[in-house]
Amino acid sequence: MSSDLKSKFLQVYEVLKSELIHDPSFEFDDDSRQWVERMLDYNVPGGKLNRGLSVVDSYKLLKGEELTEDEVFLACALGWCIEWLQAYFLVLDDIMDESHTRRGQPCWFRLPKVGMIAVNDGVVLRNHISRILKKHFRSKTYYVDLLDLFNEVEFQTASGQMIDLITTLVGEKDLSKYSLSIHRRIVQYKTAYYSFYIPVACALLMFGENLDDHVQVKDVLVEMGTYFQVQDDYLDCFGAPEVIGKIGTDIEDFKCSWLVVKALELSNEEQKKLLNENYGRKDPGSVAKVKELYDSLNLQGVFEDYENKTYEKLVKSIETHPSKPVQAVLKSFLAKIYKRQK
Amino acid sequence: MSSDLKSKFLQVYEVLKSELIHDPSFEFDDDSRQWVERMLDYNVPGGKLNRGLSVVDSYKLLKGEELTEDEVFLACALGWCIEWLQAYFLVLDDIMDESHTRRGQPCWFRLPKVGMIAVNDGVVLRNHISRILKKHFRSKTYYVDLLDLFNEVEFQTASGQMIDLITTLVGEKDLSKYSLSIHRRIVQYKTAYYSFYIPVACALLMFGENLDDHVQVKDVLVEMGTYFQVQDDYLDCFGAPEVIGKIGTDIEDFKCSWLVVKALELSNEEQKKLLNENYGRKDPGSVAKVKELYDSLNLQGVFEDYENKTYEKLVKSIETHPSKPVQAVLKSFLAKIYKRQK
Repeated sequence: MSSDLKSKFLQVYEVLKSELIHDPSFEFDDDSRQWVERMLDYNVPGGKLNRGLSVVDSYKLLKGEELTEDEVFLACALGWCIEWLQAYFLVLDDIMDESHTRRGQPCWFRLPKVGMIAVNDGVVLRNHISRILKKHFRSKTYYVDLLDLFNEVEFQTASGQMIDLITTLVGEKDLSKYSLSIHRRIVQYKTAYYSFYIPVACALLMFGENLDDHVQVKDVLVEMGTYFQVQDDYLDCFGAPEVIGKIGTDIEDFKCSWLVVKALELSNEEQKKLLNENYGRKDPGSVAKVKELYDSLNLQGVFEDYENKTYEKLVKSIETHPSKPVQAVLKSFLAKIYKRQK
Repeated sequence: MSSDLKSKFLQVYEVLKSELIHDPSFEFDDDSRQWVERMLDYNVPGGKLNRGLSVVDSYKLLKGEELTEDEVFLACALGWCIEWLQAYFLVLDDIMDESHTRRGQPCWFRLPKVGMIAVNDGVVLRNHISRILKKHFRSKTYYVDLLDLFNEVEFQTASGQMIDLITTLVGEKDLSKYSLSIHRRIVQYKTAYYSFYIPVACALLMFGENLDDHVQVKDVLVEMGTYFQVQDDYLDCFGAPEVIGKIGTDIEDFKCSWLVVKALELSNEEQKKLLNENYGRKDPGSVAKVKELYDSLNLQGVFEDYENKTYEKLVKSIETHPSKPVQAVLKSFLAKIYKRQK
């Protein structure tokens, strides 16, 4: 990805932010305008921006020729809507998970002046998406499809978050509730739709496509998003902390990780007992025992096998797609994540 | 309002709930389906249902003749969308305000198994509105206007909540930040749009009207919503607890109430000093001093004056409206709140 695109993308952020803090649908005063600006700068642009930028990349591949200035702006605006969506989820998830840091700084709600106002800030972030869409896409034929798309993906993400929260609640008493099927559902709904499907769906809508004609694209991207999260779960335990930029704590946090689910599947009764006694405990001895079990079950090998098979399956599926530009979009996503180390 | 309508309205709730917990866009399991059902029953139908029912009443007045079965269902469904919107705001507001009870039961987030999952439940409630609208209104010509309407009103409500939260934050150090202008903005955005404007706007859309042609209706309803909240502020201090069903604590809670704002406006330096020293304190002595000041400033008389003038102004404004059915809708709202004691 060009640094040119990234700087253009960041310019569009400044435009959108300025429009939002001067939105005539609300009478701002200086305090509230400053609050929103600070809240946006703190929460929206600080990530890797992969989701947002991929809207522009995908639209370019679909079109196959240079974009007009106007198209670049609109694709960037849709990209930012996804980044806003992500910011909204993260601000609220951090409250629910009682997290401390995010993107190398304290979580927004941890700031002394913010606290539970962060709940409303999350709501405001979500509402900004509707404001951006209305301002820039109201006259487009695909406007209503964009609204439906963002609504559907938000619903699926919130539903995924719900089963994640409920499962952790129940799982703490009963590890046997963790299964591959529930892991797949959490990951698919909580992560795959908003991380992989929606960027491409936005590009398709802008390109004039009807999403009902692209069920296969959705299926491939949801599968890819699931694979992406399985990698995340794997790297949390087996990745190099200096490369992934953090020390994983999924075992301590009782996460419904792909690793524990696989371990449960492959364990005999004795090994299950060990997991039940040690998973979700903070003390290093328990964590070490879980990791030893993962080693003795050869989860690294099991993961490599999963990764290779998933890759092959995805490539095959992509190559059956009738449109070469669509294939190019899907392959560019796959290439970005295959065998990633961070 | 007929008890017939109310029972019909409650039947529609059961239909909508059943559709939502069997929504094919999400793979429910028993735990998550039960969770959503319990969450809905706890938070959605337990209020007075005035906002929701008024959609049906307003639509009837606009149409001027018997509604078809289908129209009754659709008007009820829109009414329930507003009740869902209200539930969403209340679930999140109670977290932010650290409230304990709501509608005579513990706040949802206070239930031991719920806690911060309530944040996500709030999001789910909001998403249900989109699901209901998509299922029942996707094919209507006014579908996109409905989406825009709910988005706009949600944005205004969240923005009103934001200035309320920020103002209380700043006000605790500096009571002089409280003013009639900021009180009007908080009330207008946080309460009036979703309590008074959106029910009528829904009825107008269903009746085939373009909301751009009804700016006057919006202005009247927003003014009425502001008056409604001023009554609320008044009753919190001067209402009979056995009639309003609670003991007001706005003084203790440092609320930006119409009373304190009026008091500040009418006070001399000495009285302002008394307010600064006693407003927002829990001890009964301080509260009593504030109430004495309200009495010596004759706030009851000032309120009666405000109420009479507002009523006259609203009636005059309503009577200039070219449509008799629209006048009837607005007058029915006004009649419900004029000189209310609870």
